[in-house]
Amino acid sequence: MRLAIVEGDGIGKEVIPAAVEVLDALGLDVEKVPVELGYGKWERTGQAITEDDLKVLKGCDCILFGAITTPPDPNYKSVLLTIRKELDMYANIRPIRPLPSVKGILGRSNFNFVIVRENTEGLYSGIEEIGQDISWTKRIITRKGSERIAEYACKLAKSRKSQLVIVHKSNVMKSDKLFLDVCREVAGSKGVEYTDELVDSMAYKLIRSPERYDVIVTTNLFGDILSDMSAALVGSLGLLPSANIGSRHAFFEPVHGSAPDIAGKGIANPIAAILSLRMMLEWYGKMPEAALVEEAVDAALTEGITTPDLGGTYTTKEMTCAVVDYI
Amino acid sequence: MRLAIVEGDGIGKEVIPAAVEVLDALGLDVEKVPVELGYGKWERTGQAITEDDLKVLKGCDCILFGAITTPPDPNYKSVLLTIRKELDMYANIRPIRPLPSVKGILGRSNFNFVIVRENTEGLYSGIEEIGQDISWTKRIITRKGSERIAEYACKLAKSRKSQLVIVHKSNVMKSDKLFLDVCREVAGSKGVEYTDELVDSMAYKLIRSPERYDVIVTTNLFGDILSDMSAALVGSLGLLPSANIGSRHAFFEPVHGSAPDIAGKGIANPIAAILSLRMMLEWYGKMPEAALVEEAVDAALTEGITTPDLGGTYTTKEMTCAVVDYI
Ligand SMILES: CC(C)[C@H](C(=O)O)[C@@H](O)C(=O)O
Ligand SMILES: CC(C)[C@H](C(=O)O)[C@@H](O)C(=O)O
Repeated sequence: MRLAIVEGDGIGKEVIPAAVEVLDALGLDVEKVPVELGYGKWERTGQAITEDDLKVLKGCDCILFGAITTPPDPNYKSVLLTIRKELDMYANIRPIRPLPSVKGILGRSNFNFVIVRENTEGLYSGIEEIGQDISWTKRIITRKGSERIAEYACKLAKSRKSQLVIVHKSNVMKSDKLFLDVCREVAGSKGVEYTDELVDSMAYKLIRSPERYDVIVTTNLFGDILSDMSAALVGSLGLLPSANIGSRHAFFEPVHGSAPDIAGKGIANPIAAILSLRMMLEWYGKMPEAALVEEAVDAALTEGITTPDLGGTYTTKEMTCAVVDYI
Repeated sequence: MRLAIVEGDGIGKEVIPAAVEVLDALGLDVEKVPVELGYGKWERTGQAITEDDLKVLKGCDCILFGAITTPPDPNYKSVLLTIRKELDMYANIRPIRPLPSVKGILGRSNFNFVIVRENTEGLYSGIEEIGQDISWTKRIITRKGSERIAEYACKLAKSRKSQLVIVHKSNVMKSDKLFLDVCREVAGSKGVEYTDELVDSMAYKLIRSPERYDVIVTTNLFGDILSDMSAALVGSLGLLPSANIGSRHAFFEPVHGSAPDIAGKGIANPIAAILSLRMMLEWYGKMPEAALVEEAVDAALTEGITTPDLGGTYTTKEMTCAVVDYI
C-alpha cells in the first residue's frame, strides 16, 4: 500500500492528520508519501500543482486528500479537476447514510443509498468558448464513458440490493439518450434491476422518499447537484466522505472544503476525512478494517462525542482519540 | 383579455375547467379561445400541435394550459418546449410558498421564495448530435438572454425583499461565467442586493434553510432541477403553479402532469391550476382579483377542504365550489 497524503489547505491540515492517526492505529503496512498541493503552494511558487506532483501521485496507488482553498486567479485550474482528469478517475462515489445522533432535514434515518457519478465527461469536458455576447460549453457523453460508469454502478448494486436508478434528462437532451440507452444495456446484461428517472423529478423524489433508493447512476453535473442536495438528508455537507475511482488509481476526500473560518482552531470535524479513509480501506479490499473504522465512528457519535459543528464541545484531537481508542 | 384555453390530456381536462369556473366567478370581461393540443390530437391527426395552432396561440394574450401526455413516438417534440420557443417565453417563474394545512418535508412554513429560470437557452438549445459512440449537446448562454432574465428577476426582487441569489456553476463552466457576470452587472445597475451560489451548494442550502431566500435567478436546467426539488418543501409537486413569460405572451400551467392513473375520476387536485390562474391575473395587472383567488384557496385549505392526494375526501368539483363560493 503506497499512499499519497495531500493535506492541502485550511482544515485539510487538521482532518487529514486525524485520518492518518486512525490509519496508523490499524497497524497495516503502509507507505505514506506526503505531497504538498494547493493554495499555500500556489502563493509560494505560483503553481497549485505541478507535472512533478502528478508523477508522484501516479506513482502511488491512491491519494488521501484534504481540501484546497481556491486561489484568486481567474486562470486557476482546479487541482481537484486536474487530478481527476490526469489520473482518469471516472467514478465519483458518494454514499449517503445517516450517522448516529446526527439529525438530517427529514428527522429520520431509514435511508442508505449511493450516488455513482460519472466523473470525466458531460459538462466537465472543458470544450467551451467564452465570448462577449455568447459563450458555450459542450456536454459530451460517450459510449465508453457511459459503459464504464454503468458497469461500476452495476457491480456496486450487486453487492447491495441490486436496484439501480438511472438519472438523466433525455426528454430534452439527446446526449442523455445515449447515456440512458447504454446504462440500460449494461444493467440488462448484468442482471441488475433498473428504472430510470428524469433529473428534475429525481431531485424531488430523492429528498421526499430517500428510503426507496439503493444505487443511483448519473452524469457528471447531475451527480454533483444530487449528492450535495442529499447531504442535507444526512445533516451536514461536512460529514460526507467521497471516493474518486479510476482503473488504476483512486482518490479519497471529504466532501467539505478548506473552511478558512475555522482553520487552525483545532475544532474541525474529522469524521468526513475518517470515513474517506474507510472508503480507501474498502478499495484496498481491507473489509474488516473498513468495518472497524465505521464502527468506531458510530460508537464515538453514539457516546455523544462531537465537535462544535454538531453542537458538541470536543476538539478534533479528542474526537480522533475516541475513534482511535475504540479501534 | 383574450385567453387561449388548452386543457390538454388526462387531468388537464378536469383542472382547467375548474380554473375557468374560478375565472368566471370573478366577473371579468374575458374572451376564451379553446385550443386542442396534445396526445388526443396526436392520436387522431398525427400531430400534437400544428402551425395553425401556433397562430391561434399567438393571436391570444396568453394561455392557460393543463397538461399533456407524451406520445410514444421517438421523434415527438414536446408541445411545451415548442410553445416556449415559438412564443419566445424567456422567463419561467415558480413561486415556492407553503400552503395552509399542507405539510412539506421540513414541517415548517417560514419560507417564501421565487425561482426565476431562464427558459429559452442553456442546455435546451436543441444544438446537439447523437452518434453511436459519442453524443453532445451545446449549452449556450448569451448576453442578451442573460440580460433579460436578470432584468426580470431584478424587477421581481424589487417588488419583494430585493434580495437576489444568482445560481451558476462558473467554477467549472465558462458559459456560466458570462451568465454570472451579466447578472451581477444588471443587479448592480438596478440597485438590487445580490449574492451568488454554486448550483450544487445551492441545492443543499435551499432545502436546509429555505427561509433565507427571496428571488433566485438561474439558467434553464438548473432552474428545472431546483424548482422540482423545492416542491418537496411545499409538500407536493402537484400543488405548484408556474408561469412562462415572454415579451408579448405568457403561458400559465400547473407544474404537475396529466396523471393518467387518476384521470376521469373527478378527484384531481385543482389547486395548481387555480394558482396558475392567479399568476395569470397578476400578469394582467389584476391585483385585487389575484389576491382574492389566493385568499379563496387558502381559506378552503384552512377549512380542511382537500382532495384525496392531500388525504381529503373532496372531489375536484367540491374543492372548486369551495373556492368559487368564497369569491
Ligand atoms: C470544486 C468542484 C470543481 C467540484 C465539482 O464540481 O466536481 C465539487 O463540487 C465536487 O463535487 O467535488
Ligand atoms: C417536460 C419538460 C420538457 C419540462 C422541462 O424540462 O422544462 C418540465 O420538466 C418543466 O419543468 O416544465
